[in-house]
Amino acid sequence: MERGDTKRALVWCGTELLTERGFQVTGIDEVLKRVGVPKGSFYHFFANKHEFGEAVIQNYVEYYARKMTRIFDDESTSPLSRLRAFVEDAKRGMLKYGYRRGCLIGNLGQELASLDDAFRVQLEAVLIAWERRVEGCLQQAIDAGELAPDSDAAAISRFFWIGWEGAVLRAKLTRNAEPLDQFAGMFFAMLAPPARRTRRR
Amino acid sequence: MERGDTKRALVWCGTELLTERGFQVTGIDEVLKRVGVPKGSFYHFFANKHEFGEAVIQNYVEYYARKMTRIFDDESTSPLSRLRAFVEDAKRGMLKYGYRRGCLIGNLGQELASLDDAFRVQLEAVLIAWERRVEGCLQQAIDAGELAPDSDAAAISRFFWIGWEGAVLRAKLTRNAEPLDQFAGMFFAMLAPPARRTRRR
Repeated sequence: MERGDTKRALVWCGTELLTERGFQVTGIDEVLKRVGVPKGSFYHFFANKHEFGEAVIQNYVEYYARKMTRIFDDESTSPLSRLRAFVEDAKRGMLKYGYRRGCLIGNLGQELASLDDAFRVQLEAVLIAWERRVEGCLQQAIDAGELAPDSDAAAISRFFWIGWEGAVLRAKLTRNAEPLDQFAGMFFAMLAPPARRTRRR
Repeated sequence: MERGDTKRALVWCGTELLTERGFQVTGIDEVLKRVGVPKGSFYHFFANKHEFGEAVIQNYVEYYARKMTRIFDDESTSPLSRLRAFVEDAKRGMLKYGYRRGCLIGNLGQELASLDDAFRVQLEAVLIAWERRVEGCLQQAIDAGELAPDSDAAAISRFFWIGWEGAVLRAKLTRNAEPLDQFAGMFFAMLAPPARRTRRR
């Protein structure tokens, strides 16, 4: 029980530090100091820093999977409203930390894609899983008549995630939600015309 | 003359290292070793690493300004064709380095936005200058009838840059041009319908 708590505390502390500062400069010593446990405790759970990084990514993935299930399985609103709710949830998340923390996956991708092939492959797999989730939501939007029947849910989802990670990065630079609103606003407007055309038929 | 060459070599070496690895982990010693000059030489040109970082950003900005002038002032093609040419040029640039180098501004933004306010403000200013350049191109596209007359050139340019930086990041993860093509393809398709509507009038 206590062992699980220590491991969890190390991983959450790593999530914070890796999101704000990056992987390479985050020292294990600082994680230990923040959590208040001795070095042996770290190596009891993780063989090395790389394994720790993988555990931090895995923890973030699980956290986001729960969030996405909550939002995208919410049948009380329409599919496109769920995607809008996801955007609003992410905006609240960035505001909460003063726009200093973006997306761990985007951050580590930017930092490590060139440097570490194992991380690169793991991070790309996370983004593909997130794309599948939004693709499912968009397919439901097509089935519900919110999007034109000939819409390509997979391509739109990929476009969303490519641009959304850019918007999260930009919000860290502007320190406000404007880039998130700007991207989402034009993204949803782009989806709207075919839907209107569909309704006219 | 030789002094200018040494400074230039240090700055270009810094551009490579900062784009591939980031600012925090790049040591001055490695820059010196690669360029083959003694430490005193570095401190002759730069008071500290921060000043060196600023010089690297400035050099990248000047390099990109020349590139953009060449592409966006090319009156032999239409305004939208120039933006397409910019995308193709960027694709060639990423291919050249095996998709290991993205955009220095995006990389440093992701790494330093949370950590260093001076860099954050400098990097955001660069992106705003780039947006102005593309905004001018889009305004010419509106004037030339390539885009609907009620198009918002500033908003479209901002949307382009937000998403494009996301696409460059993603291409580092996939190690191919697919995210760049995916983003640009849907971006230009999004611009096309109003243009077609305009022509019908």
